[in-house]
Amino acid sequence: MIPDDVFLTLADIEAARARIAPYVRRTPLLRSDVLDEAAGAELVFKCENLQEIGAFKARGAANAVFSLGEAEAARGVVTHSSGNHGAAVARAAGLRGAPAYIVMPEGVAAPKAAQVARLGGRITYCAPTLEAREATAARIVAETGATLIHPYDNLAVMAGQGTSALELLEDAPDLDVLIAPIGGGGLISGVSTAAKALRAGIRVIGAEPAGADDAARSFAAGELIPLTSASTIADGLRASLSPATFAHIRRGVDEIATVSEDAIVEAMRTLWETLKIIVEPSSAVAYAAICDGRIDIAERRVGIILTGGNVDLDKLPWRRGA
Amino acid sequence: MIPDDVFLTLADIEAARARIAPYVRRTPLLRSDVLDEAAGAELVFKCENLQEIGAFKARGAANAVFSLGEAEAARGVVTHSSGNHGAAVARAAGLRGAPAYIVMPEGVAAPKAAQVARLGGRITYCAPTLEAREATAARIVAETGATLIHPYDNLAVMAGQGTSALELLEDAPDLDVLIAPIGGGGLISGVSTAAKALRAGIRVIGAEPAGADDAARSFAAGELIPLTSASTIADGLRASLSPATFAHIRRGVDEIATVSEDAIVEAMRTLWETLKIIVEPSSAVAYAAICDGRIDIAERRVGIILTGGNVDLDKLPWRRGA
Repeated sequence: MIPDDVFLTLADIEAARARIAPYVRRTPLLRSDVLDEAAGAELVFKCENLQEIGAFKARGAANAVFSLGEAEAARGVVTHSSGNHGAAVARAAGLRGAPAYIVMPEGVAAPKAAQVARLGGRITYCAPTLEAREATAARIVAETGATLIHPYDNLAVMAGQGTSALELLEDAPDLDVLIAPIGGGGLISGVSTAAKALRAGIRVIGAEPAGADDAARSFAAGELIPLTSASTIADGLRASLSPATFAHIRRGVDEIATVSEDAIVEAMRTLWETLKIIVEPSSAVAYAAICDGRIDIAERRVGIILTGGNVDLDKLPWRRGA
Repeated sequence: MIPDDVFLTLADIEAARARIAPYVRRTPLLRSDVLDEAAGAELVFKCENLQEIGAFKARGAANAVFSLGEAEAARGVVTHSSGNHGAAVARAAGLRGAPAYIVMPEGVAAPKAAQVARLGGRITYCAPTLEAREATAARIVAETGATLIHPYDNLAVMAGQGTSALELLEDAPDLDVLIAPIGGGGLISGVSTAAKALRAGIRVIGAEPAGADDAARSFAAGELIPLTSASTIADGLRASLSPATFAHIRRGVDEIATVSEDAIVEAMRTLWETLKIIVEPSSAVAYAAICDGRIDIAERRVGIILTGGNVDLDKLPWRRGA
C-alpha cells in the first residue's frame, strides 16, 4: 500500500503519457446533438472503450510495467484482477517481454481467461475469495520475485489512467466539468490531478453506483469507509478506495454523485443507440449521473470518460423483443 | 435517372468534400490485433457508423442538398427512403434551411419516423409499395417544385459517399485493397472513383448478401440484372443497381463477393465484440467476405468501410443467453 501523503503531479502524468505512447491508442471523442439537447449541455465523450483491450486500464498497466527497471521487469509482474486490469497487465508485460502471472478465481468466465492467455499471461487459478487471490499472488511474488501491480493502489497505475484526461483536455480544452466513474479510485485520482493542473476552475465529479457507494460515503464522512458489500451491474466499480486514492479524491474531486441500477442500464442503452458504441455498465455510470439529474451541468461543457466496452452480448440487461 | 455514360471524377469528390466539411464528421479508423491475426492481413475499418445520423448516407445527402441553387433549395427536397437516406436528407435540408418532404410507408418503425420528424422532415405516409412511394414523391415534386434526391442514382449523392474513401486513404495511404458493401451502388461508385484515382493498383472489392446479389450477377453477366426479390438481414442492401451505378461498378470494381446470412450475423457479432462498436448488418457484409474466405487478401493492407450503426437493440440476431 502506498502512503496517503504522496500525491501525483501533472509531471508524473505527462511522463506516463510519453512512456506509454507507443503502446496505447489515442482514443477519439464522440458527441451527439441528441444527447446535448437531452442534457441541456455540451457533452463530449472520451471513448476508452475503443482503447486497447477495450478499457482505459491499458494505460495504467502499461505505465506501471514500463516504469520497472530491467532487472525487475525480467522477474515479471503479478496481479489478481480477473477483469480489464488483468488483461491490461498481461498485454503490457507481453509488450515489454516480461512474464505476467495472472491470478484468476476458479469459475472465471472462459472468455476472460482465454483473453489473458492469448495475451501471453500465465494463469494461476485459486479459490474465488479475495483472501485466496491475495495469498496466491503473494506466493508468486515470493517464489519469482515478480512485482505486484495493484489495479489502483499504485502511483504508476494512477498516473497512466490520468493520461486519458490529458488527451481529453487537449481535444476539448474548454471543458467546465469532467465526470469519471469511481471504483477503486485509480482513474479519478489521475484524471483529477491532470484536470485541476491544466484547467483552473474545472469541476471534477465522480460517479458511483448507489449499490457500491463507498466513495460517496467516505467523501461525505471525511474518512475512509470500506465497501463491505456491493450490489451493482457495474462490476468494474465493486472495489474499495485505498487510503491513497481517497486522499487524491479529497484533494481533486468536487462532488460525488450516486446513481440507481435502472439509471445505469438506461444510460448504457442510450449510449449504445445514440453514439453507436458498446460501453460496459461501469462506463455508463458517469452518463447516468447526468440523465438522473444528480448533478447541475446546465449550459456547461462537460467531458465524460467512457471507461470500457467489455460486455457479454449474450447477457444484455434489457429485455429481448420480438 | 442519370445517363450511364456520365462518370464521376476525383475532382467531383474533392469538391464534395469541401462542400460538406462543415456538416459531416471526419470519422475515425479502428483496427485490432485480434482481427488482423484472424484474417492474416492488416485491416483498417472506416467507422461511418460513427457518422452523423449513424451512417455514411449523411455525406451524399449533404452534398446533394448543398449543391442545389438558392431557388431550388427554397422549394425543398423530396425522398422516399424510410431508412438512413431519409434521415440524412431531412438533416441536410434542415441545415440548409430547406423544406424536406420525406415519403414513408404506413407501418414504418416508429423510431425511424420520430428521427425524421426530429430532424425537421415533413412526413407523408403512403401505402407500403414502391409504386405508391414513387407516385407520392412525384406528386410532391409536382405540387411543390421540390427536387427529388434519389438515394443512389444521383451523381451528387455518389460523390458525397466517395468522400469516405478520400479520408480513409488520407489516414491509411498504403492500402492494397478496399472493400465496401453494395446495395444500390452509390457508395461503391464514389469510393471506387476516389480510390482508383488516388492509388494506382488498389483493388476495389464489392460485397453483397447472397440473398440480394443483383450486383454480383450483373457484374458476371456484363449487363444489368434487376433485383426481383431480396432475402437478407442486411436491409440497407435490398436495392437494385441503376444503370449509372452499374457503369461505375464496371469501371472501378475488380471483384464482387457474396456472403451468406450466417456469415453476416457472425461478422457483425465479431465486430461488436472486438471493436466495441455497433454496426448494422449491412455494414458487416464487407467484413463477412473476409471471414468467409471469399476473397484473397493474405498479407495485404485492407480498408473496410463500415457503413452504419442503426440497429434495433430489441431485435438482435443472436440468441439471448442465461
